Amino acid sequence: MSGANAVKEDRLWQRHVDRAKLGGTPKGGVNRQALSAEDAAARNLLAAWARARGFSIFTDAIGNLFVRREGTHPHEQPVMSGSHMDSQPTGGRFDGMYGVLAAFESLEALEDAGIKTKRPVMAVAWTNEEGSRFQPGAMGSAVFARRYELDEMLAQKDWKGVVLKDALAETLKAAPAPMRAGQPGFAVDAYVEVHIEQGPRLENEKKTIGVVTAIQGSRRYIVTIDGEEAHAGTTPRAARKDAYAAATRIAAAMYEATTDQDDTLRFTIGRVEVSPGSPNTVPGKSVFTIDMRHPDNDVLASYEARLHEIVQSKAAPCPAAIERVTNVPPTNFDTGVIGLVRDAATRLKLTNMDMPSGAGHDAMHIATLCPAGMIFVPCERGISHNEIENASPSDLAAGTRVLVEVLEKLANK
Amino acid sequence: MSGANAVKEDRLWQRHVDRAKLGGTPKGGVNRQALSAEDAAARNLLAAWARARGFSIFTDAIGNLFVRREGTHPHEQPVMSGSHMDSQPTGGRFDGMYGVLAAFESLEALEDAGIKTKRPVMAVAWTNEEGSRFQPGAMGSAVFARRYELDEMLAQKDWKGVVLKDALAETLKAAPAPMRAGQPGFAVDAYVEVHIEQGPRLENEKKTIGVVTAIQGSRRYIVTIDGEEAHAGTTPRAARKDAYAAATRIAAAMYEATTDQDDTLRFTIGRVEVSPGSPNTVPGKSVFTIDMRHPDNDVLASYEARLHEIVQSKAAPCPAAIERVTNVPPTNFDTGVIGLVRDAATRLKLTNMDMPSGAGHDAMHIATLCPAGMIFVPCERGISHNEIENASPSDLAAGTRVLVEVLEKLANK
Repeated sequence: MSGANAVKEDRLWQRHVDRAKLGGTPKGGVNRQALSAEDAAARNLLAAWARARGFSIFTDAIGNLFVRREGTHPHEQPVMSGSHMDSQPTGGRFDGMYGVLAAFESLEALEDAGIKTKRPVMAVAWTNEEGSRFQPGAMGSAVFARRYELDEMLAQKDWKGVVLKDALAETLKAAPAPMRAGQPGFAVDAYVEVHIEQGPRLENEKKTIGVVTAIQGSRRYIVTIDGEEAHAGTTPRAARKDAYAAATRIAAAMYEATTDQDDTLRFTIGRVEVSPGSPNTVPGKSVFTIDMRHPDNDVLASYEARLHEIVQSKAAPCPAAIERVTNVPPTNFDTGVIGLVRDAATRLKLTNMDMPSGAGHDAMHIATLCPAGMIFVPCERGISHNEIENASPSDLAAGTRVLVEVLEKLANK
Repeated sequence: MSGANAVKEDRLWQRHVDRAKLGGTPKGGVNRQALSAEDAAARNLLAAWARARGFSIFTDAIGNLFVRREGTHPHEQPVMSGSHMDSQPTGGRFDGMYGVLAAFESLEALEDAGIKTKRPVMAVAWTNEEGSRFQPGAMGSAVFARRYELDEMLAQKDWKGVVLKDALAETLKAAPAPMRAGQPGFAVDAYVEVHIEQGPRLENEKKTIGVVTAIQGSRRYIVTIDGEEAHAGTTPRAARKDAYAAATRIAAAMYEATTDQDDTLRFTIGRVEVSPGSPNTVPGKSVFTIDMRHPDNDVLASYEARLHEIVQSKAAPCPAAIERVTNVPPTNFDTGVIGLVRDAATRLKLTNMDMPSGAGHDAMHIATLCPAGMIFVPCERGISHNEIENASPSDLAAGTRVLVEVLEKLANK
């Protein structure tokens, strides 16, 4: 029996159903933010499944959780697959979790089919991909790839002031795993991540497998506008320094400036704060976040310059500033891995297409360490980061079958 | 000695200083929201001062707190003065509190000068004028004037879900006062309220006393925009239902539509909520408040129609709605009381001018019960609803001297 044939659609689906209970919301989504109690529960469940199959587990100093199926040559660099188990505050059941479960299903399928591989094959759950509680996102993989400093990340705080180091210690206490000594990161021979597309293209073009060729670049900003609190009933417009009126002018101009003809740029204002937040007080301060993405780094740089101009020209009479908080350049995946994914999908008679990824993924960091690639499957109406996110059991299994084939090839290279 | 001469500037100022400690903020303002522990402390202090002077105190079912200096004809309807002791979350030391302390200083001045009045003279602290925690504002005076239903107000909830009835019971437990039986409201012969202007006109025109002729009308609205949460990196603009992009289009059009040439309309968006509030999720919902004021009710109605048009025309593809939550028509004060204020200021050789009030005040409700008027004094740069709100001891005393003269005249009518 081939590894792909040993993938069990029912088992994989049931694991998704079981996972969705950890942080499950009334609307059918999940709220399983990084290093929460729900995250710890997800870690414990993965560890229990791993132990039941005789796989070894360990964690590292940023809390990435690894599962290892031994190879016939244990000293060879492993091939690895995985994704993340944390979710948005009102997230879906498949974003990230599918990649972890598909990787684990691959290890089980290889085991069930009695397939020995030269290299070890590993599944990984990266810490804090979403970045909704602790910024920046894709943190665990970035620390693993030495792109972010461990100490700097451990010092990050969430919106309530909780320090990441403390939240991580709490999580590892609740979900213990053997700790790998030293700084995170070790040699990996190849990395493949599967994920729901989180966009509508595969569904629209009726394809089952997305052969991911690249990840667009992404930059985040915080815009801060200072005004002056004043009485809403008495203060003439001419005498106001209304932080929210200025924020609205800035945001309106930014939405307009980022309306590109081919709808390739992604521009999002996701978090907005206005203080003091009293209906009859002119706002004294407003802060909002910008998330901007595009496959071309030069295009991103040129839009960034435009955002700066808008803040300068539209804020008066309020002082305002825009600060870039993250800058992840575009990633181009390894042509060898891309070819293996395309070949496996075709061999398995699964409709497929080459496509870039709109979303950032842990793979963008690991791609700086070793040959890497990704496999996408469709999600309903392209909706993600939403409690109604949905994907079909057969598509999830199809993506996993492609993954097993690719991992087997890579592990025997 | 006249009542006006018995006003003690130092005593009045010291009372302001003492009051500012209750809910005092590091920036020198106050956070003493309605029915908070700080509000209870302010009530206890007023009651203690009243008892020390032999004045009686009582409260009513909405928590208005009354201090009574007996008249020679106790059964005659009292004349009354007062304002409120609650503040904005980042409020100043004078807004409302000055009117209560000026009224109390007037009672003390009459007492110190040994002046007997035919009618009782009362000071009042109305419950929840600001409306920043529980909506609507000017609640205590409106219930007293039977413009709002007591039961409906007791059922209001703050942003955290606390029911007003429970917060009031808590406050009266912490600051007990004899309860007047029955529904709030009793016959009052005349009402005069003093207040800082909360705008820049007196300061700009170098006048000490504002003879307030009217209060502009005020309407509040809540605008709700529904969108669809989606992934910020993958969802094309054309496929988005971005609640905040729609909110920005609506707000920008409203700011533009309310930019009147003579700068008379007051238009404020003071509270804004965007959810889920994650930087990399397209907002699924946005809610904001509008506070709009003008001296002419017809003008307000015509702007309201325009706001409705904007919500309808700018929200697509998001469903959106605008709901009016309060509508307080303009108030014209009693010409007799206006004349008494103007005459007293002139007699005391205080520079003065007639002016309408930009802000709403409890007097707008009491004016529906009995002849009423207001006295304004300048505040620094016209800034109010701000922790840096400031006023001078001599102006505060000047306004109080005018008040004593007017109350004495009214109480002996």
